[in-house]
Amino acid sequence: MDYETPQFFRVMQYAAGADRDVVDMVSGNPDWEPPEALREGLRDYADGDVSEFQYPPSVGLAELRTEIAERRGVDRSRVIVTNGAGEANHLATTGALEREGGGSELIMTDPVYPYYAGRANLLDADATYVPVDETGQLDPADVRAAASDETAAIVVNSPNNPTGAVYPPETVEALVAVAEDHDAVLVADEVYDHYDFTGAFESALAADSDHVVATNSFSKTLAVTGLRVGYAVFPPEDGPLGDLVERARTRHMIQNVTGSRPAQAAVLRALRETPPEYYERNRERLRERIDRFTDALDRAGAEYTTPGGSFYVMARFDGFPGTMENVERLIDEAGVAGMPGEAFGESRGDWIRFALVTPRVDEAAERLADYLG
Amino acid sequence: MDYETPQFFRVMQYAAGADRDVVDMVSGNPDWEPPEALREGLRDYADGDVSEFQYPPSVGLAELRTEIAERRGVDRSRVIVTNGAGEANHLATTGALEREGGGSELIMTDPVYPYYAGRANLLDADATYVPVDETGQLDPADVRAAASDETAAIVVNSPNNPTGAVYPPETVEALVAVAEDHDAVLVADEVYDHYDFTGAFESALAADSDHVVATNSFSKTLAVTGLRVGYAVFPPEDGPLGDLVERARTRHMIQNVTGSRPAQAAVLRALRETPPEYYERNRERLRERIDRFTDALDRAGAEYTTPGGSFYVMARFDGFPGTMENVERLIDEAGVAGMPGEAFGESRGDWIRFALVTPRVDEAAERLADYLG
Repeated sequence: MDYETPQFFRVMQYAAGADRDVVDMVSGNPDWEPPEALREGLRDYADGDVSEFQYPPSVGLAELRTEIAERRGVDRSRVIVTNGAGEANHLATTGALEREGGGSELIMTDPVYPYYAGRANLLDADATYVPVDETGQLDPADVRAAASDETAAIVVNSPNNPTGAVYPPETVEALVAVAEDHDAVLVADEVYDHYDFTGAFESALAADSDHVVATNSFSKTLAVTGLRVGYAVFPPEDGPLGDLVERARTRHMIQNVTGSRPAQAAVLRALRETPPEYYERNRERLRERIDRFTDALDRAGAEYTTPGGSFYVMARFDGFPGTMENVERLIDEAGVAGMPGEAFGESRGDWIRFALVTPRVDEAAERLADYLG
Repeated sequence: MDYETPQFFRVMQYAAGADRDVVDMVSGNPDWEPPEALREGLRDYADGDVSEFQYPPSVGLAELRTEIAERRGVDRSRVIVTNGAGEANHLATTGALEREGGGSELIMTDPVYPYYAGRANLLDADATYVPVDETGQLDPADVRAAASDETAAIVVNSPNNPTGAVYPPETVEALVAVAEDHDAVLVADEVYDHYDFTGAFESALAADSDHVVATNSFSKTLAVTGLRVGYAVFPPEDGPLGDLVERARTRHMIQNVTGSRPAQAAVLRALRETPPEYYERNRERLRERIDRFTDALDRAGAEYTTPGGSFYVMARFDGFPGTMENVERLIDEAGVAGMPGEAFGESRGDWIRFALVTPRVDEAAERLADYLG
């Protein structure tokens, strides 16, 4: 499978070129407001001193790193601010692959977030995909069966894109144990941590293991995918995998020098001043959308997974597999754009992923129920 | 030599910890105002629609790419907006090294901009350094003598950091010919193109060769090193090295997803609305600083190169070589912080680089003249 040109763009272009009104449920861009403090932070930055327009430290603004470290309960030296979670995952994965005496295999899930698979291709790593069950849950025993001393990293994402699964703490702990037993790294991408509807989500950092890198970003949390502020928390420098953070600092410096400062300043302001109600409101909005959308899927006679977290519902329609061709038909004939399941791997070829980050969820649901019901 | 932790940070930390007032002539951060339109662009962005806070296209905002393409006289498909010139150089260099049947050698100059050397280390490339002459000029015949079919890329920087040399068009044309003759890529980093005092600077794009990648950024041009907006212009897609741009798009997407949107929006606004006087004023300011600083170096009995471009003056003081130890002495005893020449390679070990991006150039010059004169 060719993960090198993510199909997001193909589908979005097709939808944009359609000869009718289309509800966009393709990409994971929040459609709600960023916090007011974030806009305030950008305005203040615009009026700031000349020196604030110059390079921030390569690892990120010190105050932002402190704020992150305190929230995550880790030493600041473990935190690198990155150009979104994309770069955080890149630094963590390349670091794991470059360890001396380490393996060349990346274990991922099927379905997989396409960027992970694309990264495995780019880095010429051996990619192993462990299928999840129908509800999106990953059985750590399957990961243990796949793992070996050739395993450099296990890359997981919970709350999950595309399945919406939230791995229970036992799963994460068991995955940490697999990583430890094979001297590998568990890369835990937790960008949807603020969109957990189960109340059971726990960060992989809770395991307090030297074999975990947790990655995250403010893209989804603060509804600012375009700002590109993320971070990774690496194992402590004085531990057995202490070289990972040093390696990541070097790569970050060579490939990006540093991240964008106005974005970092705005995120810092937002973290400090945004009340808990902001996050709760966005969760509640998604919960309501999920209810309404899955009701319509019931009317359409579809199978689907009710997400425990993240922004997505995967659905399967009888006799209408999730191929690119059918996704295009859905755009043209029903006016709803989703992502073909085949874009995420073998196991979800029959499914279509719908992103609930549009105010037009009801309309889309009605259209699907009418067209496929 | 260990280029992996650029010595900028060591020197800056030492200067910050000094027990006295120190004039910082270490890093290349402009100390003058960004254009007013850039601040305006950030303010407007802060007040923008929710959708503007979401992912820009991976290759950069379409309007910004159009603006760049028109200014450079190239097709827009050749332009990728990057996280500063750092990422542009990274994409160009990795792309050259990954070409099928291509070489594994990078030819650079000595002295070298430390990030290029650090990148060669990180990518495990064979690094060959071609010494420049006392004035900083590169003899293309030396590059031709060093080049072979193992050469993947020749990486140059003009106007140059650290020497201040501006390569004449004949040099650049001859370097292009070497790249063409060995099926290699000339990576021409032109971030100081707006700080040419010779009037003779010409972009490597003028050669109209399929073997050139020109990299650039707005960091120095618009005095915004912290915004991280740069770009690379790759060879045309339908030419013999047409795969470079596709490869770069993929790597950029995998490692960064996309760049920061407020920074791109602000740069676009600045490009459209900033009058030519802004750039001329900054050049003039630097010209004056160079005159005053080199006058003081004369009084100190130092040898130096008068820069044809960029922000830097390299100087050599009799019996006072540019080691880290002497740089620290200069901080403690004269109150002036420069960069040790040895940070840039073998050939400038005796020299110290002074960055003229401080309003306190006169003061620093007096201190040097007093201490070393």
